[in-house]
Order: sequence, then structure tokens, then C-alpha cells
Amino acid sequence: MPSYTPPVKDLQFVLHDVLKVTDSATPGYDELEAEFTSAILEEAGKLTSGVLAPLNAVGDKEGCRLENGVVYTPKGFKEAFEQVKEGGWPGLDMPEQYGGQNMPYVMGTAVGEMFSAANQAFTMYQGLTHGAASAILAHGTDQQKDTFLPKMVSCEWTGTMNLTEPHCGTDLGLMRTKAAPQDDGSYKITGQKIFISSGEHDMADNIIHLVLAKIEGGPEGIKGVSLFIVPKFLVKEDGSLGERNGVAVGSIEEKMGIHGNSTCVMNYDGATGYLLGEEHKGMRAMFTMMNEARLGVGMQGLAQAEVAYQNALEYAKDRLQGRAVTGAEYPDKPADPLIVHPDIRRSLMDQKSFVEGARAFILWGASMIDAAHRSEDKAADGLVSLLTPVIKGFLTDQGYDMTVKAQQVYGGHGYIEEWGMSQFTRDARIAMIYEGANGVQALDLVGRKLAQDGGKHVMAFFDMVKDFIKQNAGQDADFDKQFLDPLKAASKDLQQAGMYFMQNGMKNPNHALAGSNDFMHMFGHVCLGLMWARMGLAATQALKDGTGDAAFYETKLATGRYYMARQLPATALHLTRIQSGADTVMALDAANF
Amino acid sequence: MPSYTPPVKDLQFVLHDVLKVTDSATPGYDELEAEFTSAILEEAGKLTSGVLAPLNAVGDKEGCRLENGVVYTPKGFKEAFEQVKEGGWPGLDMPEQYGGQNMPYVMGTAVGEMFSAANQAFTMYQGLTHGAASAILAHGTDQQKDTFLPKMVSCEWTGTMNLTEPHCGTDLGLMRTKAAPQDDGSYKITGQKIFISSGEHDMADNIIHLVLAKIEGGPEGIKGVSLFIVPKFLVKEDGSLGERNGVAVGSIEEKMGIHGNSTCVMNYDGATGYLLGEEHKGMRAMFTMMNEARLGVGMQGLAQAEVAYQNALEYAKDRLQGRAVTGAEYPDKPADPLIVHPDIRRSLMDQKSFVEGARAFILWGASMIDAAHRSEDKAADGLVSLLTPVIKGFLTDQGYDMTVKAQQVYGGHGYIEEWGMSQFTRDARIAMIYEGANGVQALDLVGRKLAQDGGKHVMAFFDMVKDFIKQNAGQDADFDKQFLDPLKAASKDLQQAGMYFMQNGMKNPNHALAGSNDFMHMFGHVCLGLMWARMGLAATQALKDGTGDAAFYETKLATGRYYMARQLPATALHLTRIQSGADTVMALDAANF
Repeated sequence: MPSYTPPVKDLQFVLHDVLKVTDSATPGYDELEAEFTSAILEEAGKLTSGVLAPLNAVGDKEGCRLENGVVYTPKGFKEAFEQVKEGGWPGLDMPEQYGGQNMPYVMGTAVGEMFSAANQAFTMYQGLTHGAASAILAHGTDQQKDTFLPKMVSCEWTGTMNLTEPHCGTDLGLMRTKAAPQDDGSYKITGQKIFISSGEHDMADNIIHLVLAKIEGGPEGIKGVSLFIVPKFLVKEDGSLGERNGVAVGSIEEKMGIHGNSTCVMNYDGATGYLLGEEHKGMRAMFTMMNEARLGVGMQGLAQAEVAYQNALEYAKDRLQGRAVTGAEYPDKPADPLIVHPDIRRSLMDQKSFVEGARAFILWGASMIDAAHRSEDKAADGLVSLLTPVIKGFLTDQGYDMTVKAQQVYGGHGYIEEWGMSQFTRDARIAMIYEGANGVQALDLVGRKLAQDGGKHVMAFFDMVKDFIKQNAGQDADFDKQFLDPLKAASKDLQQAGMYFMQNGMKNPNHALAGSNDFMHMFGHVCLGLMWARMGLAATQALKDGTGDAAFYETKLATGRYYMARQLPATALHLTRIQSGADTVMALDAANF
Repeated sequence: MPSYTPPVKDLQFVLHDVLKVTDSATPGYDELEAEFTSAILEEAGKLTSGVLAPLNAVGDKEGCRLENGVVYTPKGFKEAFEQVKEGGWPGLDMPEQYGGQNMPYVMGTAVGEMFSAANQAFTMYQGLTHGAASAILAHGTDQQKDTFLPKMVSCEWTGTMNLTEPHCGTDLGLMRTKAAPQDDGSYKITGQKIFISSGEHDMADNIIHLVLAKIEGGPEGIKGVSLFIVPKFLVKEDGSLGERNGVAVGSIEEKMGIHGNSTCVMNYDGATGYLLGEEHKGMRAMFTMMNEARLGVGMQGLAQAEVAYQNALEYAKDRLQGRAVTGAEYPDKPADPLIVHPDIRRSLMDQKSFVEGARAFILWGASMIDAAHRSEDKAADGLVSLLTPVIKGFLTDQGYDMTVKAQQVYGGHGYIEEWGMSQFTRDARIAMIYEGANGVQALDLVGRKLAQDGGKHVMAFFDMVKDFIKQNAGQDADFDKQFLDPLKAASKDLQQAGMYFMQNGMKNPNHALAGSNDFMHMFGHVCLGLMWARMGLAATQALKDGTGDAAFYETKLATGRYYMARQLPATALHLTRIQSGADTVMALDAANF
């Protein structure tokens, strides 16, 4: 059975040594003293490792069960959900007005990583609720907020997001679900939605569905889509539950992973819905929270990679197989542990350097979302919007690859479900797909974000990297060579790719889009390179100051050097591919494939 | 439900246009006229697409069931296995003396690809039998051959390979299974073996287990391992079945994939076994067939990629979602099919160019095995031994990645088991692990094969590439630029990596082994680059000659250009990583991870 150890020390390192949260001007950050954040992370760590992680395999094996319209979650989920609610975790970064603790999103993200790593399928019940509540918070009327938010912030009621239909996922303009206006200002919603995570279950008294639908007679396509609140049980004026609404689960899907989460087909049959936000502006309302939601999915990529890595590492230290090529390291044992072998280390270092770099990237992204929301920092908002598809696409692609590498360390045992490594890959796989498949992320990045506001944000990114290098060069020759030089080279590759798009994408947009996946990945590498340079700097500083655990900081530097030497150079390959253009990609007629 | 279309035209192209099998001096190749091979491939194609492919999802869903010591295979497997036997497919490349058809291994491989693509779990029952029969053929006494081979060649009896034990897989010197010599020359085998594919099932009258065990009192470690034939039912002198032997299935494993194959824990409790080959030379006997077995697994990587690609392509042509960025291609439809989008094409071209390149690589490898076995061609034997870990490791790593890409084309539907794309990835995953995990393949390549016979074989490989370029350069400027130049550059990268190992591996072998995985992958790319150059040449020639289907050859050229422009340049990244050496890989103490 796999285990999970909350990476509290690492999270603290990023928050305090790297991001220096208490120095930030963002409102609320001054309260994030190391002792305070440590207490929260330790507490969340206990819950996630002690309660949620042991249920991860149970959820996978048992899955959800639909009987007579009721979905039963796996054994133990209900009790664990009660514990989560009692701890107030779902409302950690929600407004106090609605029962939350009003902490910055960066803390919600740090805690969220642990929840996701311990049990992704379980955590989705509250994750979707958080997303739905955020949309109501941003677009709801006061009455809607007062009716739904207190119960959703506590997770007494949970939430869902209903976008996909059988014939359309990415292209929501094709949707068929209809909303018929009623005299009382409500709507009757009719249609079928699929892939609805947490769509129906037995852990909450009510489920608040946010549903995209087309108001009859509205504009065609995506411009006629509106967003509705459709509660499973209607809510009376006094806040108590009224009659059952016309929405029911049709079936639950058999999936590759996240079996513990009920993925439902939801049928709306004249269900009462309330317009959320403006008519025909449903996409805008749904996507206000997009940066957060996509960052949350990127975090899942990191989280599954983290827990898979932890277990691969334990196995590599434990399993005796073969001898070190440079001579037996444990001659008294029948064989050396796997970790002596260079190729096993290569795999472990790939995983470790990814996970720690990704953690910094995610928390940096979350801190920009805080700056955007709490300080109305437009530059931070622009930058995090630019980086959101990178966070989502790169971290989930790479996170999945890392779970596959972790599984590989186990050899044959990695393929046997009992050992739990297969579940990490199967669960991680979904993050590449939902919340906008990664191809859509790449398209969003290259087709939309790069040029947004006249390309201002990508230029700001390059300036930031340049400034970082300039400010920190020349103080330590090793640091320059091991961290800054590779970062400079990778950043230059990325700039050249952007240049290629500018010069060739005008003539033919396919020249840009054929390279979108490569661009997203090279951008991700540059971001992780920047994170490692920042972490390396922090570690160097701490070693110079002689504060804290020297071995910890030495390890950070060694891990960073690995990333810079072995992973960051991938930018050159991506650039080569991008510069080969669209011709070979688009050469064939569809019929000739 | 996914479907499978046998790639007969492509197999014929490789056999006849590229490898030109009938021009070969290898005995038996003169019979492989295009009409003859076409008839065989068409026939196998019908069986695989019509009978085996429809059972693939059934096997995945139902799995195998153990009840009172009996393993029941999924519904329909038994009847299908009868059809396979009736068709004589298991003995296609086995000696006529034992009921086979004595065809070259290259034909067994071409047919094998279709079997594996249609139903990998099913095909393993005969695949393991083939492997066990080959070992008996190579090392058995005449009596052993006469007793077992006729029944195994027909698959009336099936076979297994028993290597792994709970505490050792790669490091077989640690094994504990014992063989106690008996007065009649037989042995009593006692111990436990795990991960035994096809270990017990209901499709054959008898199961012939080949078991590695240590003869009591023999040398320690790997030098004391011998190989034994242990039939499930003892065989009487007249060939009829006698009493049940002391071997029984303990349990069947729950695995990530290949559910239709029974992966068994086998308990040997004083089971009667017969020495196969010499005492203490068990590893040698087991590994005589290693090149074939590993090529067979590499082929599984290709096969799953092929069937996954076929279905992704169909979906991409069928599913309407979004509009081409260059303007609607089907304005009369509500949206354009996925295949208009550059990033979808990028993914499909990755898959297509891999699959077709891998097919050529596999069949070229099989033709070298034929040359080695049928003509005692030492150069071919040396070269295919060198390339075997590349075929196994590279093609299964890449093959798996391709199934993941194919699954991604389906978006959310790719994650739902009903659509079948998940099964392809889950089934493909095992090929990276069994028959020597891919890390072990990389170690075999760099630690052993490179230096074998004084490095003769790798030098022969480079000479061959150089000669190919020299012989074909200067005739067609496009071909030179699009195919030969990239091949030359990639081959140079590979040579430089080999040089780095020579110069640095002597001082510290970790400098070589830390780059073993990268070397295996860059070698794979160079091989696929060579295959594409050969295919490109064949297509160019056919177009000049005006023979056959011009569109087919144009498509080959376009696909090859894609590979050369977008995939082959990966060698440069691998070289960079290799040249960064072992320092960053080995820097951390195990305790500091």
C-alpha cells in the first residue's frame, strides 16, 4: 500500500525562502508568518496523510455505485468528508462573510496540493464546490450569494460544473441544452450533460449544479450561452430544502481512474434554474474562475507526481536488486538497493526536480492570482493569465509522465494494482484532459494569450527573466554557470520561438499552431528553470547566512543543477520543431492518412 | 467500440519495396513472393480483425477468474483459440518436423503484429508457448523435443516462462526455487514464481512450464541457475497425459491491463522437472531466445500504437469540433472535424510516423534474426543483438506514449472505458516492464552490447548508415535535404555520445550508465531515421518507376519528412543530457533525496 508524507518543509521553503510571502504587499499576506503557515500545513498534513490517503486505494477499488437514482460513494468517504468539513478546510480561502477563513489563495493552493496528492478523487467533491461557489461569488445576486454560499463554503451542499454534452466538449457553441424563461424570472432547463464530476452522491444534503444552456430565441452559437444555478433540491425562502428539482443522474461512467469520484450523465428535464450573471454571457461567467480552476488542475499533475515519486523513492531505497557498477555498496546484504543504479537515479531525479520546480511554479501562480484579486494588480493578472495554460498543460503532461516513471521503478510490481502505483498514473491521466484538454491549452496560449494586450504580458515575462539574471549575476561563478546561463539560453530559445510565430503566423496561422504544443512545453521548462534559479538563489543565500538545515539547502541546489543540466535543454528541441513550421504537419489530405 | 484494420499494404511495402525479401540470400526468403505473403497476411488479417479484435474489450472487462484451482479465460477466448489452432498460426515459423510451416521469422513477425494489435492479452497465450517451444527446440534432447514440441507447435499444449520470484526479478541470482536431483535423472522443483503469464487457464490440455531453479549444492548466485521443463500433467511414454504434477496456481494478479491474460502466482511443491540444457547453464538456455522474445515485446509497443492510432484517426475525421483557423473547411456542417486542427495533426503525424517507422524497424530486425539463424550470418547476429535492447526499450516506451497521444485525441471520451482507448494505454504499459524492464534494456545496450566483440557491431552499424548515405546521395536534392542530411546529423550525435562513453566511462562507469536511457532513445531515433530514409528511397523509386499507387508513395514521403523534421532532432537533446555526465545524477546521498 502506498503512503503519503505531506511535504510541509518544502511548501514552507517556497512560501518563505522563495516567494517571501510576508514581504508581499498583497493584503492578507502579512499574516502568513512562518509559524502560522506551518501550523496550518501541519494540520492539513495530518488529515491528508492520516485520513484521506488511506482511502485512496479504497476509492479506486470500490468506485461509486448507482442504485435507484442514488449514488453511493466508497466506504469511508462520507465520514472523511465530515472530518474535512469540521476542520473548515473547504472554506479556507473563502470570504468570512459566508463562513470562510478568508486566507489567501496561495494557502488554499498549498493545502490543496496535499489534499490532491492524498486522494484526488475524494478532493474533487470539494474542489468542484469551490469552483461553483467562486462563480456565484463573482456573478451572483446578493440573494443568490446569501442562499447558496454559506452552505457551499462549508460543503454542507456541494457544487458541480455542467458544460459538456455528448456531441460537444471544447466547442460549446454546439450545445443543445435549452433554457425556457418562466414568468417568475426563473428558467426551465432541459437537456443532457455528460462527464459531470461529483454530479450525484451521498455526502451532501443538496447539490448546486451550475449549468450552461441556451435561452430560447437567443443568439446562435457560443454567444447564446447562459449560465444557470440548478439546485438538486429547490431552496425555500427560509433556506430549508424544498421539493426535488427536475434533474437526475442518468448513469455513472466507468473510467480509467478517479473511480472514487462519481462522473455522471445528468439529465435536466424542465428543471428550475436561476440565471447566474447576464443573459448570453454564460461563457464569461464560467470562465471568470478559469485561471483558478486551471491552476487547480495543474496542481493535480504536480500532486500525483509527488505522491508517486515518494513511493518510488521508498521502493528504490528498499528493494535489493543487483550491485552498483562501481562496486557493492552494501556487501553484507545479498544485493544493493535499486537507488545505487544510475538509471534509477536518473528517473528519481527527473521526478524530484519536476515536483519541486512545479510546486514553486504553482505557488508563484497562486500568489499572482492573489495579487490580481486582492490588490487589483493588472500586471499580475495579465501574467498569470498568460501562464495559466502553461501551468495547466505543461504540469499535467509532465506530471503524468512522472507517475509513469515512478511506476516503472517498481518493475513488475508497478503493474499490479495491489501496489498502488498504477492508480497514480490512471488518476493523473484525467488532468491532461479535463478543464480544457492540453491541446486546447496550447491553442489558448499561442492563439490568444501571446498576443493579448499587444503582447504586453509575454514581454513582461521576458523582462522579468532578464532582470532576474541581471540582478543576480556576477556574485557566484558557480551559480552563474549552473543556473543563470542555462536559464538565459532557454529563455532565448523561447523568445526565438515567439519571434518565429510573429514572422510566420501572420502569413499562415498554422505555422504558429503547429508548434503550439512545443511552445507550451518550452514555456513550462523556462518557468521551471526560473523557479529553480530562484530556489537556487534562496538556498545559496541560506547557506551563506548559515540559517536552517544546510543539508536541505545543499539538496535543493543539487536538484536544481540536475534540472538545469538535464531538463531545461529540452527548449532547444522544441525550438527546432517549431521552426520546422507547419508544412510537414499539414501536408497530408485527411483522406491520405 | 474500437476497430482494427490489418495494415496489409504497409506490411507488404516493408517486405517487398524496402527489405526486398525475395532478393535476400537467406534460405526460405525466395519463397516470399508478394502474392504469397499477401495471401498469408490477408488471411491473418481476417482472423485478427474479425475474431480477435472483437474479443479485446471483452477480455479487458471480464478478465480471468480463478475458482478451485481452475482459471477461466474470458468468454469467447476458448473458441477463438480453437480457430487460431485450426488455422495453424502458432506453428507458422516453426519446423515442419514438429508440425510447423517452417516460414521465416519475418513472416511470423508480420503476422504477429496483427495478432498483438487485435488482442494482446489473448495473443500472449500463444506467444509464451512459442517462446517455450523455441527454448526446447534449441536446448532439448531429441526425446524432449519429440515429447513436447508437436503439441506445443500446434498449441494443443501451451507454455510458460518462470523466472521472477517475489523478491527478485531482474537480479535472478537471488532466486530461491530449488531443484532436488532424483535417482531417475529428474528433479523435484520447489518454490514460488510470480508474474507468470498464461500460467494456468482453460484453453489447453496441458501447460508446459519452463522454470528456472537452483540445483541443490550448485554454485551460488546466477551461476547456479538451471532451467527445467515442468509439465502441468506428466506425460506418459506413449505421449498420453499422466498424473497431475506438483504445480498449482496460487492466485491471479489484478493488473493495470492485459486482463484477458492470466498472470499467475505459481507454486511448485516437489514438482517433477526435467533439466533443459546443461546444469547451471539455465540463464544461457533461457536467453538463447532473448533476441526473439525482446523483439516480440518491442512489436507489442508498435502494435498497440498502431491500433490506438487507427482509432484516433477515425475519431479525428468524425468528431466535429471547432473550425479550422484558416477558415471553415466544411461550412455546411455545424463544425469542422478535429483533423483540421494543427495540433491534432501534429499528434496524428507523431503516431503515424512512429508506427510506420517502427514496423520497418521490427521487420528489418526479424530479417536479421532469420539471417543469423538460417544462414549463420555472424554480422547479422551481432547487429541484431546490439539492436535488440533498442527495439525492445525504445519501441515500447514510444509505443506507450503514442497510445497516450491517441487517447488524448478523444478528449473526455478517451478516459471512459467504453470507448476502448484507455485499454490500449493500459495494455501497452506492460511492454515497458516485462521481458527486462526498459532500464535494464538501456543497461544491456550501454553496459554490454556497445563493447561486445570489441565494439565491432556498433561500428558496423555506423558504417552501414554511412554507406547508405554515400550510395544514395546526390541523385535527388530534395531527398538529400529532407532525408539524408537529418540522418547524417542524428547519426553523428549518436557517434558523439558513444565517444563520450568511451572517453568518460572508463574513468567512471556511471558517466556511461547515467546516459543509458538517453542513448537507447537516441539510437532508436537513428534507427527509425534510417528506416524512414530507406522507405523514402523506396517510395521515390516507385514514383519514378510509375508502379503502384502514387498517392500511397507520396504519403510515405510526406510521413517520412515529418519524422525527419520533427522527431529525429531529438538526438541532439539526448546528446546534451549524456554529455552532462553523471555528476548531477549521482550527486545526492540516498538519505538526502
